[in-house]
Amino acid sequence: MNMEKVLRSCKASYTKMSNLKPEHRIAALDFFAKQLRLKKDFLLQENLKDLKEQSGKISESLYQRLKLTEDKIETLAKGIKDISLLPNLSNTIAWKKQLDDTLVLEKKIVPIGVVAIIFESRPDVIPQILSLILKSGNVAVLKGGKEALNSNRAFMSIVSDMNSHFDFLPEHWCYLLETREEVSRLLSYSQYVDLVIPRGSNELVQTVMNSTNIPVLGHADGICHIYVDSSASPTKSLDVIVDSKVQYPSACNALETLLIHKDIAKNFMESFSQRAAEEGIELKACDSINALGYNYSSPESWSVEYGEKIMAVKIVEDIQSAIEHINTFGSHHTDCILHNNPEVEKIFLDYVDSACVFSNASTRFADGYRFGMGAEVGISTSKTHARGPVGIEGLMIYKYQLKGRSHLVKDYVGSEGRSFNFKFLE
Amino acid sequence: MNMEKVLRSCKASYTKMSNLKPEHRIAALDFFAKQLRLKKDFLLQENLKDLKEQSGKISESLYQRLKLTEDKIETLAKGIKDISLLPNLSNTIAWKKQLDDTLVLEKKIVPIGVVAIIFESRPDVIPQILSLILKSGNVAVLKGGKEALNSNRAFMSIVSDMNSHFDFLPEHWCYLLETREEVSRLLSYSQYVDLVIPRGSNELVQTVMNSTNIPVLGHADGICHIYVDSSASPTKSLDVIVDSKVQYPSACNALETLLIHKDIAKNFMESFSQRAAEEGIELKACDSINALGYNYSSPESWSVEYGEKIMAVKIVEDIQSAIEHINTFGSHHTDCILHNNPEVEKIFLDYVDSACVFSNASTRFADGYRFGMGAEVGISTSKTHARGPVGIEGLMIYKYQLKGRSHLVKDYVGSEGRSFNFKFLE
Repeated sequence: MNMEKVLRSCKASYTKMSNLKPEHRIAALDFFAKQLRLKKDFLLQENLKDLKEQSGKISESLYQRLKLTEDKIETLAKGIKDISLLPNLSNTIAWKKQLDDTLVLEKKIVPIGVVAIIFESRPDVIPQILSLILKSGNVAVLKGGKEALNSNRAFMSIVSDMNSHFDFLPEHWCYLLETREEVSRLLSYSQYVDLVIPRGSNELVQTVMNSTNIPVLGHADGICHIYVDSSASPTKSLDVIVDSKVQYPSACNALETLLIHKDIAKNFMESFSQRAAEEGIELKACDSINALGYNYSSPESWSVEYGEKIMAVKIVEDIQSAIEHINTFGSHHTDCILHNNPEVEKIFLDYVDSACVFSNASTRFADGYRFGMGAEVGISTSKTHARGPVGIEGLMIYKYQLKGRSHLVKDYVGSEGRSFNFKFLE
Repeated sequence: MNMEKVLRSCKASYTKMSNLKPEHRIAALDFFAKQLRLKKDFLLQENLKDLKEQSGKISESLYQRLKLTEDKIETLAKGIKDISLLPNLSNTIAWKKQLDDTLVLEKKIVPIGVVAIIFESRPDVIPQILSLILKSGNVAVLKGGKEALNSNRAFMSIVSDMNSHFDFLPEHWCYLLETREEVSRLLSYSQYVDLVIPRGSNELVQTVMNSTNIPVLGHADGICHIYVDSSASPTKSLDVIVDSKVQYPSACNALETLLIHKDIAKNFMESFSQRAAEEGIELKACDSINALGYNYSSPESWSVEYGEKIMAVKIVEDIQSAIEHINTFGSHHTDCILHNNPEVEKIFLDYVDSACVFSNASTRFADGYRFGMGAEVGISTSKTHARGPVGIEGLMIYKYQLKGRSHLVKDYVGSEGRSFNFKFLE
């Protein structure tokens, strides 16, 4: 396979994809959902090959992520329908502004271009991402986990069905890479690929970031905090803390570090130490907590993403020290305050420099689906382009369209020149 | 100077800058403009040192860019006033959405963080950029051209005045680097610097892009095109072409390649060749033009940014070949169609994949000031974050604020779980 030829063709497909009519996008998405249901048995059978191959080789949790079920396929089909119903953004006008009489500037929302998404093991990522790609008008180059090769190919067979069924879809609106070596080559083609989204381990994300000039969207770490303010309700706090950790401990938005205001630390730790033991959460604690009569081991550092039922706990002086701890040791992903004091809430939400800042809600809500985006292509801790869960809005950029009547810049220059007459039109 | 210490202090200054009250930003900007006028003589005197130092060493056009005048300083002061009057974006709510009863998500616009801007020779870039930085609530690390060292330091003395005058400004909301070696070190600190904007030569931009993991905003090349459609008015077209080239030939938005529809090529070239000669524009042409009886030299390639009064000219079959040429050989900066046919205009604006796509207007309008942004920190040909002239909007990102009442994710899971109830609130 000639990588440059494929990518050139992807790039050429982009202008077609970006100009698809909204009703064509919806038709393609409806067909996608229909084929998923029709090909259910085939998908399960191909997935079974992967499962047999991997059985005993991977952990139980990875095995469950790899496994497709009738329910999962039905959920995918419904998810595609939801995405097809989201408002169309492509080629809409964000604003229109007069620069001068008959000289009008428009900011037009357009899809980004060729987006490479590199992910691990879970094959159902493919239909989720492709539906966002289709709805937004981008072109996708995908690389899935090799453990899911048969499942990935089965999903891609639906793309072939779609390409045969609809003339309006360009051949290379989506392409599946199958080897790591292809990914390395892909990352050198910054002239054809506009954005890379690595989804997976810290190691995967770091490797991608260090080996390309292409903009990268994603997050390496998910070191999420909850700060329990002195005003917090103890019982409700326990439930939110447990949900943030136990509901899915290996998720990037799961809680890793609990910060407790010093004024309530003694009482709070009494109930929390018991609840943590009941839930099977292992605690690591600062010296001040052990000084209250506990005997927890110390955390190796305050920047560890445990990814399992282990949590670090620390007593802090006040809201300022909590914020300083989070901004210093966190990963700017998702951080939460539990409280009953709107003033303290405002300080936390204003000064914690993270993609998602929560008040009295589980950190596990940081997710594209739960944010009402239909699905997500990833979660970003970058400070540019898109931050937090990234849905269709994060797959869009804009171009400036200026329409004049042979306007010249020289007419606006110097003290005798015309003045601009800026005015937003709609 | 300890780079890490400075950058850590810049990062710490960011949360303060991002939470400045809008009226404080305006007060600081007003003071900035006032000091510029008050210190006019000092600025001119320091600038004179640079001019004396550089006299004879740099080209006339660089000398003119280096030179400050009373008029330039007055224009700068007025520009700062204009920027202070722009709407405040920092900490405004872009949208508010209910995820469920009493679980409300807000998308809050916030400044990006620590922005490094590396530029060449022109010292008046400093007040322009700092006023955008102040208005938006970011922190700036600047590196100016060494030719302008005394002028740069003189502008920075106003920053010291501001810091002494206003308690609300953190010490390191802006910092000036003076050596290239410092820039190399800066580019390795991706944990402290959120965005780099190189403004200058292709070489500078490429060097920065290749030596950092920090997101880079800017453009290496400005290979801008005008396509003259068969429907275009010949006389008006000539004026727009000349303005696009001659008004400032070394600007990135100046015209480099002219594409002419084959049906009008013969007649058009007759008048254009004469006008080009009058304007002192040297032409390089494709074989089909020379076959009409001319004797121009061939362009070395169709991807040259001449930056002076030289222009490449080519005959194209139709609008499709014009678009293909632009998307293949251009730099996705600014491209324009001259025409009297709305259908052809729409195809051009939809299918040319550039930051700025113009219809019947000089390419020189691609500029933050002319777009009504007050000023620009740079022009971007990237497909992510910000594209085209970048003003205050391009210095902003967002964070997601979720406010709940101890909501748990486990309550929304499984077939028995609660459903979300997504609804935009305002």
